[in-house]
Amino acid sequence: MSDYIQLVGLSGSLRTGSYNTLLLKAAAQLLPTDVSMEIISIADIPLYNADLDLPAAKQRPEVVEHFRKVLADADGILISSPEYNYSVPGGLKNAIDWASRGEDSPLLRKPIAVIGATTGLWGTTRMQMAFHNVFLFLDMKPVYKPEVLVAQAEKKFDKDGNLTDETTKKLVKQKLEALKQMIHLQSQVGDILDTKVI
Amino acid sequence: MSDYIQLVGLSGSLRTGSYNTLLLKAAAQLLPTDVSMEIISIADIPLYNADLDLPAAKQRPEVVEHFRKVLADADGILISSPEYNYSVPGGLKNAIDWASRGEDSPLLRKPIAVIGATTGLWGTTRMQMAFHNVFLFLDMKPVYKPEVLVAQAEKKFDKDGNLTDETTKKLVKQKLEALKQMIHLQSQVGDILDTKVI
Amino acid sequence: MSDYIQLVGLSGSLRTGSYNTLLLKAAAQLLPTDVSMEIISIADIPLYNADLDLPAAKQRPEVVEHFRKVLADADGILISSPEYNYSVPGGLKNAIDWASRGEDSPLLRKPIAVIGATTGLWGTTRMQMAFHNVFLFLDMKPVYKPEVLVAQAEKKFDKDGNLTDETTKKLVKQKLEALKQMIHLQSQVGDILDTKVI
Amino acid sequence: MSDYIQLVGLSGSLRTGSYNTLLLKAAAQLLPTDVSMEIISIADIPLYNADLDLPAAKQRPEVVEHFRKVLADADGILISSPEYNYSVPGGLKNAIDWASRGEDSPLLRKPIAVIGATTGLWGTTRMQMAFHNVFLFLDMKPVYKPEVLVAQAEKKFDKDGNLTDETTKKLVKQKLEALKQMIHLQSQVGDILDTKVI
Repeated sequence: MSDYIQLVGLSGSLRTGSYNTLLLKAAAQLLPTDVSMEIISIADIPLYNADLDLPAAKQRPEVVEHFRKVLADADGILISSPEYNYSVPGGLKNAIDWASRGEDSPLLRKPIAVIGATTGLWGTTRMQMAFHNVFLFLDMKPVYKPEVLVAQAEKKFDKDGNLTDETTKKLVKQKLEALKQMIHLQSQVGDILDTKVI
Repeated sequence: MSDYIQLVGLSGSLRTGSYNTLLLKAAAQLLPTDVSMEIISIADIPLYNADLDLPAAKQRPEVVEHFRKVLADADGILISSPEYNYSVPGGLKNAIDWASRGEDSPLLRKPIAVIGATTGLWGTTRMQMAFHNVFLFLDMKPVYKPEVLVAQAEKKFDKDGNLTDETTKKLVKQKLEALKQMIHLQSQVGDILDTKVI
Repeated sequence: MSDYIQLVGLSGSLRTGSYNTLLLKAAAQLLPTDVSMEIISIADIPLYNADLDLPAAKQRPEVVEHFRKVLADADGILISSPEYNYSVPGGLKNAIDWASRGEDSPLLRKPIAVIGATTGLWGTTRMQMAFHNVFLFLDMKPVYKPEVLVAQAEKKFDKDGNLTDETTKKLVKQKLEALKQMIHLQSQVGDILDTKVI
Repeated sequence: MSDYIQLVGLSGSLRTGSYNTLLLKAAAQLLPTDVSMEIISIADIPLYNADLDLPAAKQRPEVVEHFRKVLADADGILISSPEYNYSVPGGLKNAIDWASRGEDSPLLRKPIAVIGATTGLWGTTRMQMAFHNVFLFLDMKPVYKPEVLVAQAEKKFDKDGNLTDETTKKLVKQKLEALKQMIHLQSQVGDILDTKVI
C-alpha cells in the first residue's frame, strides 16, 4: 500500500436526499490529507441467493463482482446508515452478505467505520450496535471511537443539504482520522493482524 | 378471528434446497390442529427505497403490496432462516423493512416465531438474537420458547430433504403449538395487548 | 391472584441520590389504581457463587432467600437502572442471577418492565437492549412499550429529587399501565402462557 | 513495555471446580513464549456503589484498588466465563464496572480476550456477544479470533480437571498467540491507537 489511502463510502439509505447520504457527502469534504473516498451505490445489488454465488454459479452477477472489486481496491470502508427497525437496513446488510462470501472476501480484516443519522432522538445507537457481530465474524477492524451518532438530523443540515453542525463535523473528522490511522497500522503490521482463522 | 389459524411461513434463504426452506416445509407438516401455513417467497421484493414507499410514491411496488396483504391476512408468522455474518440475512431483513412501514404495518403486534438451521455448530443463536430489537420496535409478540436451533443440519435431513431428527421435530411442534396459543391469547384480549404506543 | 397487584421495584444503582432510584420513587407515585409497589435494595446480596447455592449448599444465603421470596410474592417487577459500560450494572445482574436459579425461580414467566435514566444523551438504550437475552432465557414477559429512556436526567428532576418532566411522567404512567395489563393478562390465561419449556 | 508480556486471568465463575476456572488454568499451561499469566479472583470485590468510588469517597475500597493495580500492571487480560441467563455473570460485570471508572481506568484501550465453557450445547455464544458493548465503550482492544466456545465441557476435561480436548487446546493456544500479537502491536504503535476519545 502506498501512503495514499482510498476509502469506499456506502450509504445505507437509497432515497434521494437521505440524511445519511448527505452525511457521507459531508464526510467526503472532511477527509484527512492523503485520503480520498469514492461513494458507491448499493441500489442495484440483487438479493443474495447462493444459487447465483460461487460455487453453485460459475460467476457472480456482474454488479456484485464490480462491488466486490471496488471494496477490494479500497483500503477502508465508511458506512453512513439509518436505523431500520432498530437494526441495519436490509439492503445494506444484503450488500455486505454478497461481499462477505468466500476466502477472497474483500471484507476480511478490512478497516471500517460506521456513522449514522436519524431524525429521532437516539442517534442510530442500535443500528451501530447491530454491526458488532458482522465485524466479528469477518474479523474486520472497526474503528469505534469517536462514535458519530447524529440525532435530530433535520436540525444539522441546511436547506441545500450541507452539514452545518460543528460538533458533528468535528466528530466526523476525528472518525476519519482514526480510520486513517487504523489503515496505516494494519498496513505496517501486515501478517501480524492476519490471524488466518475465521 | 375464527378459531382457524392461518400462518405465513418465510424462509430467509433463497437458494434451492436450502435447509431452512426444508425446515419450513417440515414445519408445514407438523402444524397443530386447525392451523394452516402458506409459505411465500421474498425473492422478488426489491431493495427498500423510501422514494418507492408512501408517502413519497403514490403506491408501493405491487409485489410489496401483495407481500403486506398476505402478512395482514395471516394470524401469525413463522420465519426459518440461516445466519449470515452472525446476523439476519439482508434479503429477509429487507422484506421486513418493507412490511414494517406505516401505521398500517401488518407486523405491528403480530405473533411471530423464528427457527433456524445451519451446518455449523452454534445453531443460528446470533441470527435469532438479532431479531430481538426488530420485534421490540414493532411491538411484535415473539414466541421465544422452545428455542429451535438446528446445528449440523446436514445430519438432520434425509436425501429427499425430509426432516428426520426426532428432537428437532418435537421442538418444532412445540414451537408451533406455542405460536398457536399466543395467537389465541392475543385474539382473546384484543385491545389489552394494543398499547397504541410505538 | 386477586385484582390487586403488587409490584417489586429494583434500582440498578446503589448510590445515594441516584437518578434511577429517584425515577423508581417517582414511578411509585404514578401507579395505576389497585397497584402498589415495594422498592427493595439489592445492596446486600453477595456475589453469586454456585457453592453457596442449591444443591451444593443446603440453603441459600438468607438475604438471597428473602430477595427471592419478595420477588415470588410480587405479580410483576419494575427495574430502573443506569447504564454501566453500555450494559446492565453488574450488581443488578448479580441479583438477577441469584433469583434466576432453579425450577422454582421467581423470575420464570414473570411480567417485567425496565426504565432507565442517564445524564448522557442516549437514554440507556444499550442497557435496556442488554436485558433482551436475560428475559428470553427466563421466559419472562417483558413490557417493552412505551420505552422510557430518560436522557439528560439532571434537567428532569428538581433539587428535591422530584421528577418534574411531564413527558417522562406520562411515559412512566403508560409503562405502568401496560405492565398492569400484562399482569392481568397472564393471570387470566394461566397455563396458556406457561410453555413449560426452558 | 519490555518484550516480556504479563497477562491477568479472570474467571467469571466463583465456584470450586468451575469449568471456566479450569479452562483458565489450562490456558496458563498453554501460554506462548515470553508470556506469563497471573490468575486473580474477583470473589472479594464488593458491589459497585458510586458512593464508595471517587470522587464521592476519598479512596476506593482496598480490594478494588488492588484489583485495578493488578490490571494496570498487566499488558492484557484473559477472561474465561460461563454464561448466566444468556449474558455475562453479574459478579464479573461488577468487577469490570469497578475497574472501568475514571480517566485512569486500567481497562482503557487494554488488549483483551474472552473464552468460555458450558455444559450446554451453544458454547457461551451469547455471553461472548454481550461483551461487545463493554469493549466498545472502553475502547478496549478485543481479540475475537479464533473464537473459543467450549460446549459440553464435561466431556473435555478429565477427572482431575485437566483440559484434554485437543481442538480446544489448539484454539486456546491460537487465541493466546493472537492476544500476544495484539499486545505487541499496541506497544509498537503507542499513541497511534490512543484516540483520546471516549
